[in-house]
Order: sequence, then structure tokens, then C-alpha cells
Amino acid sequence: MRTRPLKVALLGCGVVGSEVTRIITTQSADLAARIGAPIELAGIAVRRPNRVRDGVPAELLTTDATALVKRGDIDVVVEVIGGIEPVRTLITTAFEHGASVVSANKALLAADGASLHAKAAEHGVDLYYEAAVAGAIPLIRPLRESLAGDKVNRVLGIVNGTTNFILDKMDSTGAGYSEALDEATALGYAEADPTADVEGFDAAAKAAILAGIAFHTRVTIDDVHREGLTEVTAADIASAKKMGCTVKLLAICERARDGRSVTARVHPAMIPLSHPLASVRGAYNAVFVEAEAAGQLMFYGPGAGGAPTASAVLGDLVAACRNKLAATTGAGESAYTQLPVSPMGDVVTRYHISLDVADKPGVLAQVATVFAEHDVSIDTVRQQGRNQGGGDEAATEQDGGPGAPPSGSWGREGGEASLVVVTHRAPDAALSATVSSLRKLDTVRGVASIMRVEGE
Amino acid sequence: MRTRPLKVALLGCGVVGSEVTRIITTQSADLAARIGAPIELAGIAVRRPNRVRDGVPAELLTTDATALVKRGDIDVVVEVIGGIEPVRTLITTAFEHGASVVSANKALLAADGASLHAKAAEHGVDLYYEAAVAGAIPLIRPLRESLAGDKVNRVLGIVNGTTNFILDKMDSTGAGYSEALDEATALGYAEADPTADVEGFDAAAKAAILAGIAFHTRVTIDDVHREGLTEVTAADIASAKKMGCTVKLLAICERARDGRSVTARVHPAMIPLSHPLASVRGAYNAVFVEAEAAGQLMFYGPGAGGAPTASAVLGDLVAACRNKLAATTGAGESAYTQLPVSPMGDVVTRYHISLDVADKPGVLAQVATVFAEHDVSIDTVRQQGRNQGGGDEAATEQDGGPGAPPSGSWGREGGEASLVVVTHRAPDAALSATVSSLRKLDTVRGVASIMRVEGE
Ligand SMILES: NC(=O)c1ccc[n+]([C@@H]2O[C@H](COP(=O)([O-])OP(=O)(O)OC[C@H]3O[C@@H](n4cnc5c(N)ncnc54)[C@H](OP(=O)(O)O)[C@@H]3O)[C@@H](O)[C@H]2O)c1
Ligand SMILES: NC(=O)c1ccc[n+]([C@@H]2O[C@H](COP(=O)([O-])OP(=O)(O)OC[C@H]3O[C@@H](n4cnc5c(N)ncnc54)[C@H](OP(=O)(O)O)[C@@H]3O)[C@@H](O)[C@H]2O)c1
Repeated sequence: MRTRPLKVALLGCGVVGSEVTRIITTQSADLAARIGAPIELAGIAVRRPNRVRDGVPAELLTTDATALVKRGDIDVVVEVIGGIEPVRTLITTAFEHGASVVSANKALLAADGASLHAKAAEHGVDLYYEAAVAGAIPLIRPLRESLAGDKVNRVLGIVNGTTNFILDKMDSTGAGYSEALDEATALGYAEADPTADVEGFDAAAKAAILAGIAFHTRVTIDDVHREGLTEVTAADIASAKKMGCTVKLLAICERARDGRSVTARVHPAMIPLSHPLASVRGAYNAVFVEAEAAGQLMFYGPGAGGAPTASAVLGDLVAACRNKLAATTGAGESAYTQLPVSPMGDVVTRYHISLDVADKPGVLAQVATVFAEHDVSIDTVRQQGRNQGGGDEAATEQDGGPGAPPSGSWGREGGEASLVVVTHRAPDAALSATVSSLRKLDTVRGVASIMRVEGE
Repeated sequence: MRTRPLKVALLGCGVVGSEVTRIITTQSADLAARIGAPIELAGIAVRRPNRVRDGVPAELLTTDATALVKRGDIDVVVEVIGGIEPVRTLITTAFEHGASVVSANKALLAADGASLHAKAAEHGVDLYYEAAVAGAIPLIRPLRESLAGDKVNRVLGIVNGTTNFILDKMDSTGAGYSEALDEATALGYAEADPTADVEGFDAAAKAAILAGIAFHTRVTIDDVHREGLTEVTAADIASAKKMGCTVKLLAICERARDGRSVTARVHPAMIPLSHPLASVRGAYNAVFVEAEAAGQLMFYGPGAGGAPTASAVLGDLVAACRNKLAATTGAGESAYTQLPVSPMGDVVTRYHISLDVADKPGVLAQVATVFAEHDVSIDTVRQQGRNQGGGDEAATEQDGGPGAPPSGSWGREGGEASLVVVTHRAPDAALSATVSSLRKLDTVRGVASIMRVEGE
């Protein structure tokens, strides 16, 4: 084994960085054996050098991150600061000074992965970021390497623990969104400003990274259709239950049927309780990968947290260090397919629509006609009279052509009723045009909820 | 991109090899883009060259596998023949002629992985075998690379699809073992000679491979305690259900609490229905990995089949080809911990024991005394009178010291009764000594079943 150590610079020493420091300092013998040379923490950049940090060697702390990455003797830079700047500049500077980079930064990778990869390649160094998606779960390496000889058609997953915690709470207790969010905040699962999580930005960044790798093309966060879960109501969850479903915030990356484009999206969706993702509880993450030869694979584990995320960072660090020792690099960006990203309107999916309608004859026929006009075929219709309570309910299954109304009379004179329609698969554009038209019907008093149905 | 192709020799063209051939021939553009050079199938060794093989270029077939691996211009040899010889010699010859090897051969790797790794290292080539464990599921690469900076404490999984299919059938239909095996055979899930699967040899080979990689030591199939599922009865499964459990054939690799040794074993075990492995149905595989920083990870997917296994082979092939192009090799064997493998007696686990006992007073006290003598603490006792049918049943939970009999009278005069005891965790040696002593009691007419309880 080489005795001269590889030098590692750490940028950031917060939730993740402090765990990275702990593992590097306490597991040094194991790491050395696995790498083939010892590693040495050469410096740790933070904002507040005087903060007390347990187990972090104070003499390594610096506020001058730029000087650290410019030292010239650093083999690998581990970036766990987060955000776009100054991090992008720091990483670029590290490459220019011959260092490989390991990062946990989904925001930066999803905004600008391509130019970072290009910079790394130009300087003959590595850029690894397993920790950027789904925390401890090995996902990027399996997609890039284990499935390198296969053709991935779909990636479907729960990649944000905060929102899964909130939805799980809503599902198990019947709580509303804000009540569940309060609990998530109190328990430390949600940050003081939860926007990045609840509006789906975090999941969208991960979807962009996964789609790019899975389909060997370039996808940025701006290409990802994004809907958060702030509009999900207790009624939506109850409605999902009636259908034998639960609601999850999903990241979905798909290759179009004709193979000429891909899509990436994040939104709440109903999935059947029988789907393995339905039983992913609390803040856990899980990702389904469907590949042509491999079939359906699932990867499950803790999607965040200091130690789990550090585990992923350390795996990358060992790989980057081994490559440095062997004077080689791992596989770089693979974007040769150059498949374009199609807009949300092209996505083929199913809708679950809840309408408040006038409780009189002919309403269902009117509604069904609107679906037919947009070429959207109805799978199930369920009607519930407002004044009759939960017990009085009727459902029908259709296998006729698009939008053909079921035989028999549905309407009742006067009052209000609700109509729940589940469609067959149709382009999202047609589905949303159908909803717009429904809103214009006199007999439709309101659209109570719209949710996509996935995972079937 | 380099235009001179990398040459690949295929040894075997059966279930897996024909799918490997199909992917190499139909996905050549994608593979070339991902590798950085085209690959060319240079020859395919089989036993019966005149057999009709759809989509396999007949001019590539040869029965002289030795000549093929000795050609000298082969970059990577893909071995999908199986078994120990002549494969071991062929692989060694391939290494000596400068070829890297990708294999799906769990039997060989579990028997003699260490010397193959040493040979590969000696000749500066790669040895990859992702397909040898759990088919399409990326498991070896995540363990070797993604978790290279973490400390794995336990690997627990369903790694044999045939036996999972059989147990799942027994569980869902109440069928006995041989009935379920017949169905598995009829549906092609079990081979004509099912010994390797049902006696646990296949799973034991995989356990050896996983334990070696997870704990950075050397484990061969001879180190693995192995029990098959031929003794599992419909009554065992029913008994498991009563406890809110199901029965699975598990491969379990553990680091001892003191960290000084490891264990590896394969046996049927009860696991709670709430455990994610309980819902792994049919021929699917799933593996739990518990690591110190990462926490609990699960990997799930098809554990066998031509196309899924070929997916794993192709992932390795792309990696081996990339390394050839870069004139480097991936990480080799990591066995630096040299942790010894302890015998089964040292494993700490729980037993579920079903006894046929005389239905008279004092029996439970006698039985409980035997447990206490072996320092095995009882968790639950359930007694059922033989003549009273399923409804008449009593259970008690103990939290007293080891083996303290519950208060109240259990025995009934005359006849037979059954007693179901679930223990707390104890060394397997103490548990099995307890069972031996129980067999010697006059009042114990027979030991109907013994099964370990895992996954809690
Ligand atoms: N936390 C998770 O569970 C998790 C999971 C997956 C990925 N990630 C990613 O990991 C990264 C770090 O997350 P975190 O939770 O560890 O964040 P954090 O706890 O907020 O830590 C950020 C660290 O960066 C330092 N820092 C901030 N600005 C700096 C600057 N300009 N120069 C030098 N140091 C600076 C901070 O210094 P002070 O300590 O002095 O404030 C702090 O040590 C992010 O990209 C995040 O998305 C986190
Ligand atoms: N099948 C699965 O689902 C699966 C899953 C994981 C791993 N594996 C592993 O993959 C390997 C292959 O399995 P398989 O199911 O594909 O086996 P298989 O269908 O029996 O195919 C074996 C192939 O090897 C050829 N062969 C046998 N002896 C040979 C010799 N001495 N020289 C040259 N060729 C020879 C056979 O030739 P002929 O065609 O002329 O008979 C046949 O093409 C095994 O190690 C197995 O454990 C299989």
C-alpha cells in the first residue's frame, strides 16, 4: 500500500459534512485498505470558523474555500455546501487545479451538470454525485454502471422524504396538509422554509439528474414539469383510499413509446396500494427502475440525513481516490442519445377528477360528452348525492368507446352531487383540455380535485 | 470514438448466453457509445454446435472453448456455462491470455473466488460477476463500490426465486411442499432436478459471495450453514401465519457484535408480515443491506431469467470493456479484514418450536425448566388442545426470567396437546441443545417443527 496519503478538501461541515468528517477520521484504517492508500483531511471550509464542532479538528477549519481548492496538492474535493454560487466556481476551480470532485449538490447538478462534466473531462478528473439523489440509496452508480448494457424505459420514485412524511401522515391520520406539515417541521423532517420540498423543487432537481443518466441525454430542472403537494387535501387522500390507492409525490422519468423523446415530471399522484411504492412510509425514499432486459428493479432506503448521505459521499470518495491512485477516471457524462425532453402535454397518463355537479338528470351525459369530444376514454364513474351522505353511492365501469355515457339514469332533481371520473390513458394535454371544458359547463359547479393515477 | 472493436468471446449460449448474444447484436450502437468503442462477438463456445439457435450467428459457434480463450486477441470473455470444470480452467486460461472475464457463475465464485481474483490481479485484468447473485439486481457493485466507505453489518435476503415461488405458493394456497414444487416445475420455475435450489446450495453460494464482499473477507460455500426447505410443512406455514409471520428461505450474513468474526447461513425462517421481505412474491428476489452510516437499504428485482441475468452480464461487460480501453482495471478482491467465519452455533437468533406434548398438568413447567437450564429465555407460549380444535387456544407472554412458567394451569388430563414456544434471542447452540433435551422428556411426544424467527 502507498504510504503517502491522498489529500481531501472538504467544503462545508454542516449536517452532511460533519458526518463525512467523522467517518474519514474514525474509519481511516478501513478506508486506507479499500483505497490502497491513506487519506488525509487537508482542510475544511465553513462560514463560521469559531462555531463549536464536535469531532472536527479545529486546525483544519478555514473560511477561505477558494484558497483551499487552489492549493494544488488536493486530490479530491468533497463539496457539501449546497446551492449554485459560490459552489459552481469553487468546483470549477478545483477541476482546474487537478482535483476530482464529489458533491451532494442536486441543485447545482440539475441546473448545470453538463458544463461541470465537460470541465471535469477537460481536466481529466472525476465528478461523482451519488448523494445528490435519494441520499444513501445507491442509484446513480447502478444506473450508470450496472444498467450500462440495458435500456431504461422508466424511472418512478419517491425521492423526497419530507413530502413523503407529510403524505404518509395525511394518509394514516386523516390530517390536512398544513397540520401534517406542522408535525413534519416539529419533528425536524421539514425545514423552517419548506418551499424546496413541498413545491417539488428538490424532487424536480433529482428527476432531472435521474432522467439524464437513465436516458443518456441532458435534462435540466427547467425541463421538468413540477407540481408540489400544497394543494393536496384530506378529501383527495380519502378519495384515493376509496379507489384502493394512496397519494405519493412522484418523480417520473419516461422514454416516449416511439423512443424519440423523454419526459420528466414531479407531481402528486394516486398509486394502487398493491404497488410497492405505496408502502414506503415516513421519510424513506424508493425508486423503481424499469429496464428492457432487467425488468422492474426497486431501490429503497433513507433518502436523507447526515450519516446516510455521508455514506453515499464516502462511496464516491473511495472511487475518486482509487481512480487518482490508478491515474485514471471513471466513466464521464453519457449524453450521446441527445433525446429531447417533451412537454407535459405529451405525457400519457390517467386522471382522477372529482366534480361538484348539479343533481339533475342529464348531467352525466353532458359530462361524458365533453370527455368524448376530447377523445378521452372514461374508465370508471362514481356518483355521490351530496344530501344522501356517504352510503348512497353508485359506480359503473365502462368499456364502451370514449366517453359513452352509461345506460340508466344517474341524475336526481335539484341539489348538488359529486361525480368522480377516472379516465383511461390519454395525453395530458387532452386531459387538461377536458377539465377546462368541464369547468365551462353550467351543470358543473366546481372541479373539486384533479389527480393523476400512476403505477398500474 | 475508437473504431477498432473490442473482441468478446462468449462461453455458453443457453438461457443466459442467448440473451447476451441478442443484446450484443441488437444494441450494438448503444453499447459502442457507452463503451467508447464498438464490440465484436468473436466466437461462441457451446456443446452442440448444430442446434438451431434463433438470432445467434452460426459462423461464430465452436465447440472448442479452449482454443477460443487462447486466441490471444480476445479482450473480454463472458462465461455463462456454469459449474466448476471445465470453466475454472477456461477462465484461468483467459486471464493468462490477457482477457478480462465476466461470469454469472455463483458455484465457481463461491467455491474458489479467491484464487480466481488472484489470477486476474496477477495478469492485470478484471473479474466481474454481478449476475452471479440475484440476477438483474445490482447488488455486488453497490456493495463493492457504493458502500465502500461504509461498514456493512448485515445482509439479509431472498436470493433464490425457485424456493420463494414454492413458499409463496404454500403460503397463498395452503399447499404442501411437494404440491407447490410440482407447480413450480410445471411452470418452469424449478428445474427437473431441483436439488440445488430446494436444498439451499444455490442460496448458500450466493451467501458466501455476498458475505465475502460485504465484510471484506473470504467466505466460501463450505463456510455457509445450509438448510433447505424440503422439511417445511403446510403446518409450519399455518403456524407462521398465526404469529403474523410468513416463511421465507433467507440468506443471512452477519458481523458478530464484537466485530471479530462473521457468520453466513441459509435456512427457512419466519419473518413478520410487516417486514418488506415478507411481501416479496413469486420468483422475485430482494436483499436487505444494513450499514452503519447508510442504515437499511433494500434492493429488489427479478433474481433470474435469461434477459434479467443478461442485463447484469452486460453491465459488467461494459465496465470491463471501458477498463480495457483505458488500460486500467476496476477494484479487485477486498479481503483485508481476514475476519474468520464462525460456526452456526455462535449465531444469535430466535426459535419458534412446536411440540406435541401429553395433555396433563405440569408439562409446561417441565418444558420451561428445560429452556431455563440452557439459559434460553421464552418470549411466548401458546398451547392448543389436540381434541379441542383450532378455536380453543390460549397464549401467554412472559417477561419474567428465562423459562419461568406462566402462572395459571395449562395442562389438561389425558390426550395430546401442542405447545408452541417462541424464544428470545439466544445462541443457536443453546437453542439446539434445548431442543435435544426437550426430545428426551417423557411428556414431549415429538417436536413437530423448529423454525428460526428473523427480521425483527
Ligand atoms: N442534509 C441532508 O439530509 C442532505 C441529503 C442529501 C443531500 N444533501 C446536500 O448536501 C449539501 C449540504 O447539505 P447540509 O444539510 O449538510 O447543509 P448544512 O447543514 O446547511 O451545511 C452547509 C455547510 O456549508 C458551509 N457553508 C455555507 N456557505 C459556505 C461558503 N460560502 N463557504 C464555505 N462554507 C460554507 C456551512 O458553514 P457553517 O457550518 O459555518 O454554517 C455549513 O458547514 C447540500 O447540497 C444538500 O442538498 C443534504
Ligand atoms: N438461468 C438463469 O436464470 C441464471 C441466473 C443467474 C445466473 N445464472 C448462471 O449463468 C450460467 C449459465 O446458466 P444458463 O441458465 O444459461 O445455463 P444453460 O441454459 O444450461 O446454458 C449452458 C450453456 O453452456 C454450454 N456448455 C455447457 N458445457 C459446455 C462446455 N463444456 N463447453 C462449451 N459450452 C458448454 C451449453 O451448450 P449447449 O447449448 O450446446 O448445450 C449451453 O449453451 C450458470 O453459471 C448459471 O448459474 C443463470
